[in-house]
Amino acid sequence: MKSTNAKRPGPILSTDYTAGAHPAVLRALIASNAENTPGYGSDHYCAEAAAKIRRACRAPKAEVFFLTGGTQTNALALDALLKPYEGVLAAETGHIAVHEAGAVEFTGHKVLTLPAKDGRIRADSIVAWCERFYADESYEHMVFPGVIYLSQPTEYGTLYSLEELTRIRAAADRFGLKIYADGARLAYALACPENDVQLPDLARLCDAFYIGGTKCGALFGEALVLPRPGLVPHFITIEKQHGAMLAKGRLLGVQFKRLFERDLYRQIGCYAVETAQKLRESLQAAGFEPAVSSPTNQIFFRVKPEIYRRLQEANIGGFWDYAPDGTVVVRFVCSWATRPEEPEQLCSLLKGDQT
Amino acid sequence: MKSTNAKRPGPILSTDYTAGAHPAVLRALIASNAENTPGYGSDHYCAEAAAKIRRACRAPKAEVFFLTGGTQTNALALDALLKPYEGVLAAETGHIAVHEAGAVEFTGHKVLTLPAKDGRIRADSIVAWCERFYADESYEHMVFPGVIYLSQPTEYGTLYSLEELTRIRAAADRFGLKIYADGARLAYALACPENDVQLPDLARLCDAFYIGGTKCGALFGEALVLPRPGLVPHFITIEKQHGAMLAKGRLLGVQFKRLFERDLYRQIGCYAVETAQKLRESLQAAGFEPAVSSPTNQIFFRVKPEIYRRLQEANIGGFWDYAPDGTVVVRFVCSWATRPEEPEQLCSLLKGDQT
Amino acid sequence: MKSTNAKRPGPILSTDYTAGAHPAVLRALIASNAENTPGYGSDHYCAEAAAKIRRACRAPKAEVFFLTGGTQTNALALDALLKPYEGVLAAETGHIAVHEAGAVEFTGHKVLTLPAKDGRIRADSIVAWCERFYADESYEHMVFPGVIYLSQPTEYGTLYSLEELTRIRAAADRFGLKIYADGARLAYALACPENDVQLPDLARLCDAFYIGGTKCGALFGEALVLPRPGLVPHFITIEKQHGAMLAKGRLLGVQFKRLFERDLYRQIGCYAVETAQKLRESLQAAGFEPAVSSPTNQIFFRVKPEIYRRLQEANIGGFWDYAPDGTVVVRFVCSWATRPEEPEQLCSLLKGDQT
Amino acid sequence: MKSTNAKRPGPILSTDYTAGAHPAVLRALIASNAENTPGYGSDHYCAEAAAKIRRACRAPKAEVFFLTGGTQTNALALDALLKPYEGVLAAETGHIAVHEAGAVEFTGHKVLTLPAKDGRIRADSIVAWCERFYADESYEHMVFPGVIYLSQPTEYGTLYSLEELTRIRAAADRFGLKIYADGARLAYALACPENDVQLPDLARLCDAFYIGGTKCGALFGEALVLPRPGLVPHFITIEKQHGAMLAKGRLLGVQFKRLFERDLYRQIGCYAVETAQKLRESLQAAGFEPAVSSPTNQIFFRVKPEIYRRLQEANIGGFWDYAPDGTVVVRFVCSWATRPEEPEQLCSLLKGDQT
Repeated sequence: MKSTNAKRPGPILSTDYTAGAHPAVLRALIASNAENTPGYGSDHYCAEAAAKIRRACRAPKAEVFFLTGGTQTNALALDALLKPYEGVLAAETGHIAVHEAGAVEFTGHKVLTLPAKDGRIRADSIVAWCERFYADESYEHMVFPGVIYLSQPTEYGTLYSLEELTRIRAAADRFGLKIYADGARLAYALACPENDVQLPDLARLCDAFYIGGTKCGALFGEALVLPRPGLVPHFITIEKQHGAMLAKGRLLGVQFKRLFERDLYRQIGCYAVETAQKLRESLQAAGFEPAVSSPTNQIFFRVKPEIYRRLQEANIGGFWDYAPDGTVVVRFVCSWATRPEEPEQLCSLLKGDQT
Repeated sequence: MKSTNAKRPGPILSTDYTAGAHPAVLRALIASNAENTPGYGSDHYCAEAAAKIRRACRAPKAEVFFLTGGTQTNALALDALLKPYEGVLAAETGHIAVHEAGAVEFTGHKVLTLPAKDGRIRADSIVAWCERFYADESYEHMVFPGVIYLSQPTEYGTLYSLEELTRIRAAADRFGLKIYADGARLAYALACPENDVQLPDLARLCDAFYIGGTKCGALFGEALVLPRPGLVPHFITIEKQHGAMLAKGRLLGVQFKRLFERDLYRQIGCYAVETAQKLRESLQAAGFEPAVSSPTNQIFFRVKPEIYRRLQEANIGGFWDYAPDGTVVVRFVCSWATRPEEPEQLCSLLKGDQT
Repeated sequence: MKSTNAKRPGPILSTDYTAGAHPAVLRALIASNAENTPGYGSDHYCAEAAAKIRRACRAPKAEVFFLTGGTQTNALALDALLKPYEGVLAAETGHIAVHEAGAVEFTGHKVLTLPAKDGRIRADSIVAWCERFYADESYEHMVFPGVIYLSQPTEYGTLYSLEELTRIRAAADRFGLKIYADGARLAYALACPENDVQLPDLARLCDAFYIGGTKCGALFGEALVLPRPGLVPHFITIEKQHGAMLAKGRLLGVQFKRLFERDLYRQIGCYAVETAQKLRESLQAAGFEPAVSSPTNQIFFRVKPEIYRRLQEANIGGFWDYAPDGTVVVRFVCSWATRPEEPEQLCSLLKGDQT
Repeated sequence: MKSTNAKRPGPILSTDYTAGAHPAVLRALIASNAENTPGYGSDHYCAEAAAKIRRACRAPKAEVFFLTGGTQTNALALDALLKPYEGVLAAETGHIAVHEAGAVEFTGHKVLTLPAKDGRIRADSIVAWCERFYADESYEHMVFPGVIYLSQPTEYGTLYSLEELTRIRAAADRFGLKIYADGARLAYALACPENDVQLPDLARLCDAFYIGGTKCGALFGEALVLPRPGLVPHFITIEKQHGAMLAKGRLLGVQFKRLFERDLYRQIGCYAVETAQKLRESLQAAGFEPAVSSPTNQIFFRVKPEIYRRLQEANIGGFWDYAPDGTVVVRFVCSWATRPEEPEQLCSLLKGDQT
């Protein structure tokens, strides 16, 4: 196997979960390894991590639950937030609508899709959808809207502005909806110069959101935040019922404690966003055209099919979509683990140096 | 926090998931940390770990899936094995029947309970249950038996013998049932001198079983084995649908690869079983009465209420049950992480040296 | 087919849903047949029927929903009453626990069984179960009790007394539980001389119950009563989601309006209970031994296997159970449709006149 | 109440389930009312009705199940046909996608919507959707297509031609899909002069379909046909689990036996389609513009808002949609119960005679 590895390195710039944990997080896991703690998240690490997250969110009474993955967190949180007769409003391109194998429907709830532009839905669309819903005299025979699902940043690397999020909150309040934000890549939103939605804003404007670990420096894990306590009674039991409770819950506590110490979560985000920004500029300078205007750690470029084939051979980036003009939209993703030589390698390849 | 820890160490002998990973497993995680691999278990570590498990099971075509926890694995595997109109036969004391918050029912299936003795059900009971079921003229209005759930070792630390398991297989074949074995603590069965059911026996006699990692030396994770390929088409998608797929699947591959290298899984089991055996002997020598005749890493003793209170104060062992005579059944659990001084500490306490 | 029918009449005394509708109910359906009404229960018949039921229950604000069958009503009502993490406490012999093909589990909820005597559970058992549940330090990992399921009369034709029901209410209040009563055969409880639980008592002591139509004179249909309005928001939508809403909802309204006019529901019950009582006396006089002391329209007798075979041949009564002494417990059921000659036919057969 | 009825008759031309049963069906129910039969569809009426349906479909081995309503039949049949990881492809305007309160999602399956024109999807769209699905390298993380849902006639009163249905079958075969046809209004398709898809075609080209009763002359009920036996083992148990099994199953058998005797089902369809055709012609002659070109018993016309208000006041027809030009699309529906004076009443109103 080693020789294979030597010849063909793993994928680069393809996504933000190809490596393990940020070294500092790994060290925290090593340091705590021999310690005995009680199970299921009732340990002191989880308590400390939750306290740090509450502080960062300026939500002193928030409930914080640590989970292992994004699809799991989405399906569990939405099932916990939705009433049985409610569905979740989401962008038609939202992760829950497309790439989670129907995990939301598996829990009995419909995903109600809204048109999206670069991954974002608009407060206007929500209002229009709800007005139309309640104007239908047979609305009691239809799935009620219950929660608005947003992702920050979106699957297209774009951001909701504080202004738009505030408008969405107003729409939610008007129609009695909750807001849930999927923060799988939240570090890369928080660290983005263009971003004006900080953790306290999310805690104020959302009913629930999660702070992504898996894609943001943790070995694995996500931190679900419910800013207002009591919203979901017996969440622990629902979590268990979903098979989502980790016996050694402290593993998650150890990681999130470290991520929220000494500014690590922000640093991880910054490095990736800056690296992505430099790569974006290099690619544009080389004449490539961005397919989406995304300011975070994911960038999307149009390339000709023959270039896409070379990228595939070199195991760099990943397929995103076919553009109507026959070009291929390729996604490049940066993370804490992106080595400086990786963007260089990509640029060289695109310039033809390696062929 | 540190001072707190200094004063009050974590729980000891209370269960087998209070510490992190076995040092060798942790080293494997550290060594692979910087490597980039593709996601969702499609990496070389998972491939290598699966190959090793197939070899150990002498099941060269077995499908192996890596999951993060026991309840998750049970609910997912049973949902994948059961037809919509089927339920799972289980000991009334089985983990899925009592301690998983209805995770099986959450997927729409009934747990059909059978009387159990020390955690075990008998082939005879299965036959009797099924005969009665099919003798009922309205059986089509009832939940069909579909899968037999066993745990090896059981929740009471006891074992199914090869003879009994063979009888259960015959009962299963007679009534068209599948067998699923919950191996959360499988290392401690495999390493037990009294045990005569080895991995190839499980692979031959069960339709699915899992090799526990979380409680057997891994940081976290379980390896689900389907010895006969093709039994569950598109398992990957069902796994995703359950929110059970880890993005960095390779974390599980790295761990199970190491556990099945250089005899580690057996060694972990042996150490814990031997430590438990010594403790059992010491307690019996000290005049305590075992509540269950369990030969693996869990031992159960009857103690007077006042002794139980002292154990609680010292954070040693755990409550199991009230015995009809007013005594308390306490469980002590050993693992790879049990330090030699822990059993000594317990014996001293029971002798009153520390009071 | 006709000749076949001539030779072999349908089953007699076997159950209370072998015939169509009570003639008066049928006439009401005929009378309303040509009328146009809006759908889904929003018609004037449903409104009038609900008003009559409210009056009979002395529950002026009760919500009343009309459904088509018992299993459907049980599964729907329990799903609507239970929180996601809750299960339903029921007699181990309860209809939902045994004969509904896992319809409750299909909606994601566990049936938590309690020991039963002649179909009844005791307030004491509920208290003991709940005390044990909340004493378990890991109760958050278990299915919470949410609703108590009772059947009145029970599957064994027995009755809850007002005293016992009041005790069960106290137990429910102590542990925050709701009470749901399955009244599939409620007419036969209400009409029973031994019964002291009337509709206003059910409305006062239960959170939900249904008034059976299918087995009590209707062509089909059940009336679910929620005495305190607002308990289940958007029940209509949950009903639709369960596929339980009848397009021509008025069919149910027409029937229940008539059942609650001119004392019909009580008369139907009285006739069946009296007929059963006479049959019971005849059988006892003939030396047969009752297996259950049931005062309603179902009676249970022990017979020798050869007599059971003759009953089978004559298509009279139905198998219930094997008694430990080798005899067969047979159930005979009376209804509004039981013709006077049917009990006579049974008695003749038992006396051997027909052989 | 009577005076109210006298003043304000029920809705007319609003839908096809506002009246009771066709008189012939009602007579069959009356004639069989006193007969005793065994329960749950195991009676001779259901056997005879199934035999007649098999004959009409030229599908001598077809399995036929009788159910009470359309949403129930759709949710049950789709749940029985779909594997757990599969969803159902449907027109975005399909009844299951919009008006069934998420009953399909309640069973855990996603509705995968396709663009529709006048209620119909095209074979081409199915092929394109599936090609795109299988071209996505992460398709295992998405909901697989499993069944194609069609309605014949559609919710817009339009029809699939035999040619298009044959093409859809070819698309289904290419991608391993099943076809399910919702025949809630099937009588009105079968009787339509433009229709070239007869029952034997449906039986040959679909894996399952239902013959609507509720909207086509029955008091209530639908007949689900599975042309090839063995496709869904233990359907009876799944039906019970869904709460969809009628205790007095014979009520459905009696009705469908009669509907398939002496050409009744066709006659019911013919009368409604002819009545609708005459009404369509009158409205067009009066200068109104059809919104959809629908040849069956539902017709859709654009009217000005003030006319719509008069229709509302007169309780005639029903709101369908707002057209982009500000007019209102109104639906008028004919059935066996439409009296000749109803279309006249509508025409008079539109001409202003009644104002």
